[in-house]
Formats: sequence, C-alpha cells, structure tokens
Amino acid sequence: MGMTMTQKILAKHAGLASVEAGQLIEAGLDLVLGNDVTTPVAIHEMEKFNKKEVFDKSKIALVMDHFTPNKDIKSAEHCKCVREFSGENEIVNFFDVGEMGIEHALLPEKGLIVAGETCIGADSHTCTYGALGAFSTGVGSTDMAAGMVTGKAWFKVPSAIKFNIVGEKAPYISGKDVILHIIGMIGVDGALYKSMEFVGEGIKNLTMDDRFTIANMAIEAGAKNGIFPVDEQTEAYMKEHSTKAYTKYEADADAVYDEEYTIDLSTLKPTVAFPHLPENTKTIDEVGDIKIDQVVIGSCTNGRISDMRIAADIIKGRHVAKGVRVIVIPGTQEVYLQMLEEGLTKAFIEAGAIVSTPTCGPCLGGHMGVMAAGERAVSTTNRNFVGRMGHVDSEVYLASPAVAAASAITGKISSPAELA
Amino acid sequence: MGMTMTQKILAKHAGLASVEAGQLIEAGLDLVLGNDVTTPVAIHEMEKFNKKEVFDKSKIALVMDHFTPNKDIKSAEHCKCVREFSGENEIVNFFDVGEMGIEHALLPEKGLIVAGETCIGADSHTCTYGALGAFSTGVGSTDMAAGMVTGKAWFKVPSAIKFNIVGEKAPYISGKDVILHIIGMIGVDGALYKSMEFVGEGIKNLTMDDRFTIANMAIEAGAKNGIFPVDEQTEAYMKEHSTKAYTKYEADADAVYDEEYTIDLSTLKPTVAFPHLPENTKTIDEVGDIKIDQVVIGSCTNGRISDMRIAADIIKGRHVAKGVRVIVIPGTQEVYLQMLEEGLTKAFIEAGAIVSTPTCGPCLGGHMGVMAAGERAVSTTNRNFVGRMGHVDSEVYLASPAVAAASAITGKISSPAELA
Repeated sequence: MGMTMTQKILAKHAGLASVEAGQLIEAGLDLVLGNDVTTPVAIHEMEKFNKKEVFDKSKIALVMDHFTPNKDIKSAEHCKCVREFSGENEIVNFFDVGEMGIEHALLPEKGLIVAGETCIGADSHTCTYGALGAFSTGVGSTDMAAGMVTGKAWFKVPSAIKFNIVGEKAPYISGKDVILHIIGMIGVDGALYKSMEFVGEGIKNLTMDDRFTIANMAIEAGAKNGIFPVDEQTEAYMKEHSTKAYTKYEADADAVYDEEYTIDLSTLKPTVAFPHLPENTKTIDEVGDIKIDQVVIGSCTNGRISDMRIAADIIKGRHVAKGVRVIVIPGTQEVYLQMLEEGLTKAFIEAGAIVSTPTCGPCLGGHMGVMAAGERAVSTTNRNFVGRMGHVDSEVYLASPAVAAASAITGKISSPAELA
Repeated sequence: MGMTMTQKILAKHAGLASVEAGQLIEAGLDLVLGNDVTTPVAIHEMEKFNKKEVFDKSKIALVMDHFTPNKDIKSAEHCKCVREFSGENEIVNFFDVGEMGIEHALLPEKGLIVAGETCIGADSHTCTYGALGAFSTGVGSTDMAAGMVTGKAWFKVPSAIKFNIVGEKAPYISGKDVILHIIGMIGVDGALYKSMEFVGEGIKNLTMDDRFTIANMAIEAGAKNGIFPVDEQTEAYMKEHSTKAYTKYEADADAVYDEEYTIDLSTLKPTVAFPHLPENTKTIDEVGDIKIDQVVIGSCTNGRISDMRIAADIIKGRHVAKGVRVIVIPGTQEVYLQMLEEGLTKAFIEAGAIVSTPTCGPCLGGHMGVMAAGERAVSTTNRNFVGRMGHVDSEVYLASPAVAAASAITGKISSPAELA
C-alpha cells in the first residue's frame, strides 16, 4: 500500500521501509522546539528524571516569544530559567529579546528546518513547517523534554486528507482565506489526528507565506500536521535561508486518503471566522455590520513580510478609524528591518497604527493588546476561542491581513475591495 | 517680600497680588492630567460625589500610556472606563493607543501646556512641564477629580531652592547627569515640598530636552515642582508646538530661597544612581565592574528624540553585548516617526536592540521588560526603588541615554568615553 508524504518522512526517520496509518513508531527528530511558556515545564520534567543533558545542542531551538519583552515577574522568571538552561547546555539556537521573533516565523527564516525533516515543538502551531515539506507537529512539554533528551519521539502514524488545490487566487485572497475556508468546510475537528496534505496544480499559485499560513492553522482543524509538496518556490526559499541539506518526498500514486477535497482558489472570497471557533466562517459579503475596537496584524500565522506589505498597501495614506486601536506586530526582527526598509512602518505610524516589537502578545491574550469586556477585534491570528484575547466577553474575528487592514480604516469588518 | 517664579504663577492663578511660602491658596488650573492608572480612580471619585461633568473639556488631558497596549484584562478595563468617560464628556485631549505617547513627553509636544500656566496631573512626574516655565505638579486621583470638576486646586505655596547653573556641559553630560548629580547632593527629600528653581547663565547651555529631564525628576528630590526661566529656546519650542498664548515670569530680585546651590556643568561627570534610591549616585569613574542583564532607553524622563539620537549614535554599527536585552522605547508616536526618518530605529534593530511602541511599561515594572530575581538593568528612567522594574531582588541603575547605550554595548555599566 502506498504512503502519503507524511508517512514517507516518518518511515524514513523510524528506519522503516514503510509505515501505515495507526502504526506506533519511534522516529528520530531533526529539531525540538520550545518557547518561554512551555520550555520551563520541559526543563522541570528533565530534572524530575534527573536528566541534565540534551541529545544535540544544535538541534534544539528555544524561542522567548510569548510574554516577551517580559510582561511580569513570572514570565521574567520563566525566561531566566530557559536562559540559564541554554547557557549550561550551550544551546546553539536560543533566541532571546533582540535576536528573536515569533517562533514559527523565526525558525524557517533562520533555516533551522527544511524539507524532509521531523520536528516537534511544545507549541500547537509547530505544524507551520509543513509548508516546507517537513513533518512538524505540536506536542506537550513532557514530550518536548523526552525529545530534548533522546532526540526521538513516539508517533501514531496519521492517516491523511488530500486537499487538491486548483486555480489562481481570486482578488484579495491569501493563504489565510484558504485555510479559513477549509476549516469552515471540515470543522475544527475535521482533520482530527490526520495529516492535511496539500497537492495540485494550484499550489504554484500559493506563495511560501501563503503556505506557512495554511500549514500553521492545520491544528485548528485538529490535524496532526499539514504538509505541502516541495516545488521551485520551496527550494528557492530553503536555499535563501538555510545551508541544510533537504529531502523531497512525494506521496505515492496509490497512497490512501480518508477524504479528498478540491479547493479552487479562483472561487474563494475573503473569509472571516466569527466568535468563538475558527470554523464559524462567513465570506466577507455575508458578514454584515460589525463594529470593532481593535485590529491586530501579526502573529505566527500572519506576521511575515508579505502580510505586512498587504496591510500597509491598504493602510498607507489613510487613517485608522476613530476609536479603533490598530496593533501591528512584525513576526521577527528581520521582518521589522525589512518593514523599515520599505517604508511600511512609517505608513502604519502615520496612519495612527502602532508597531510593536515581535511578540506573540495579543494573540493569546498575553499582553500588547488584551481586550476588555464587550470589545471586538479583527485579528490575523489563529484562534478566536472564548476569552482568547482577553475578557470572556470580548470577541475575536479571524481574518486575512487585507481584511484586517481594511477594517482598521473603516472601523467595521470590511472587504479590502471597498477601499480599492 | 519678593516672590519666586513659582509663587508668581500661583499668585496670578489665585487672583492675588502676592503670596508667600506656607500660604494656603486656591488656584485656577489650565490643565488637568490623568493616565490609565489614575484616571479610573478619579472618575470613581467624581461618581461618589455624583459629579458627571468636567469644568472644561479642552483643559483635561487623559493619556493611556502606563499599561498600553493593554497588558491584561484589568488594564483593558481601566482604559475602557476612561475611553467611555472621554466620549461622554467629549474630552478633546484623550489619547488612546495609536495617538498616544508617554504623557510627559506627549503634552509638551502637543503644545497643551505653555509658560505661565498651572497644571496638576495624577502622576508624580507631572513636574516635567516646569521646563517650559509652567507650574506643574503631581497630585493624587482625588485631587485630580476635584480639579476636573472645579478647574481649581488648593495649594500650600512652596518655598524654594535656587540652583544657579553655570558653565558649558562637559562631554557626554546631559540633563540626566545634572539632575542625578543634584539629587545625589541634596538627597531624595532634599527639596521636600519646595520649588526647585533653576536659573543662571548656564541655562542656555541646556537644551529643552535637558530641561524636561531635569524638571521631570524634581519629584525625586521630593520637590513640589521644578521650574526653568523662559528663554529663546523655550519660546522657540512653544512656537513650534503650540498655538497657546504664554506668559513669562521671573523671580523677583529679592525673592527668598531656603538654599542656593551652584551647578557648574563643565565639572560634571556622567552620573549613575545605584539601587535603591536616586540619591545613591556615583560618577562613572567610581562605578566599578557591574555586569547587567537589561538596558532600557526611554520613559518620560529620557524618551525624547535627542535621547534617541544620543543612544543611537553610540550603538550604531556596533552590536549589543551577548546576554543583554536592550529595550528602546520612543516617548511618542512623533518621536517614533522621527527615529524612522533619521534611521535610528534601523541602527537599534541592526545592533540587536528592540524598539517598542510608546509606553511607560518597564519603568514601573508594568510590562515590556519586567525583571526576574537577581537581574540588573541600566535604565534611563527615573526611579530605582526596590522592585521598581520587577522582582524585589532585581536592581535598577539610573543613568543617561549615553551611559545606557555604552553599557548596552559592553554589557556592564560603562562610560560612553570608553567607546569613543
């Protein structure tokens, strides 16, 4: 029986000729990731088992991004714990304030993960790196601890859903609309413990940043991972960002899928996920009149340079609506620098938005834009659960950078087409 | 008996021909200020007395700067309270995320206070505007509430200490060194409930930003206010920033001072206040070998464009020391824009510093750089009390932007001369 892309990568890393869905395997890891929230827990787990050393100091990435620059004493203590651990273990890829970015924007940019590799991260959006043709998935801190010590992890081999991408993107459509459309279609448990494998002639019409956004939110459909084939764009990206050797995997022609869907990019409309689940999607023409208090443009989902360009292009020369706080957060210091270079930061500030230093901050109600009761945000982030961005009586509407930027200008959820 | 500058302004606003130290007077207010921490308390006080209306909607400034963009639900609720109050009262100068800056950097920049005026603010560093030849002082939220309703406040007329400024600034000397030197000399209660009146031929050698920094920290010597004479620089500043009419006051030749000091700018050395009081000063050559974890450049004390220029000039083309988090916070959106214009932001980011959106944040251990136990910061802020920037076992060393920038590069408290 043929294997999916994901299964082939797992088989290779388990030293097996083939694997099948449901099989339990132990696979070698090319990268183990943690952040300032999850790593201290993992370190504590290691201590409990009296383990002090990591399997490979160059294959661990620790990124201080959630509550940094530190929002309180507790988060400062967490970062200090990871900082000391990294020093003792000579962790090569410890990213502190000043070097850092949001983990899932940072790691691909730094070339730390490439096609054909395996990665676990103690952060649910670790699935982002599937955009590069890697197997990557989120785990708990205990699994992270085991991964840091052994360089291996147990997996139940996932079955898969095939998403056949066709056509060219309709106006204002980006990866965010694609994944919100899919989650709206299959639901937040539509891909539970499965691989979401994206294939088809339309893939070439998705930029790398589109693919990162799509893979990033695979977890929001419950998926174990999301994964893209490696094409010229992927190879160009990896060559630009990494010196690592990579391996291209393709699904076998006779690979088995639980389900297959076709997504025609040309028929999509800008899509918004209403509170309080990413599956509560409406296309922009169905949204109605929804006034907002805050806009967040950034996060591991949409904090890359192309996201900033799209938003700045809409906001430039205009002013944000009165009463709307517009918070722009570049994903990494590199994105921040590029924004300066291109005048995007200036455009945002002149429009009355603010531009923060990289942080996950508002996405998880951490800091830098937490909401009060009754407030509403349009956000390019990935989750709109109850209380996700603050008070339980606040609301988050998930959308693309284009919709977020247009909404910032009008003060209500709006199509970028309105401002064209 | 002659009057001091402060006494003349107070007499005028009390409708009296003269006042003397110790006299209780009721004076009219030209501006009442509050922030996101203090204004909700003041609003609550107004409600307790069933007062809903303010005396003059154009003479109140409400600035959301301490915990913004909001760090948590509580701070979000506070901002929401002030936002709604401002809407109901049509407060002209309500500054929210995107329009805002740190209050004491913002108000002069917006031209909301000029020479000869009176201002109370529910923030201790309201004394900053003395740099413009205004009487301004910090009050509690209850006094702020009374001021908002009546447009008046009771004062005990302060006596004064005269600081005769002479000479030209020695290399690397800025307003911060002047005021730290003074506080080191007279102590944190050295000017308790008195005016610190700065006069002399050396005043012309202090930039407006130097004067803002000096007046800002008058409260750190316990002063009721700090105040500067109005000269050509002051008038140029006010004409650039404000359309308000101003009045110049000079102390009478026979004004009485409790004490007089002469400060020779040419003999000052860069000065650092050691934990845990601003009076614990040492000159840079006495500092010794003190390793640091964090540098903060910003705040109402030193977040103006000249501060950013001084720091960037030292940091540009270098890289911050390994293990040191360097947090740069422009005082206002206008300062942020000007930094972009001059390439300062780029210089900071390239050096491995981070540049945040305007906020008081780390200065008061609020957010954006709170410290863990055992950590040390060099900071351009104004207070280094126990736990001021986080854990009670963390330490803050107050210094100028030049010393902070040099320390960012070396990783220990350093003189900018070391890097020249």
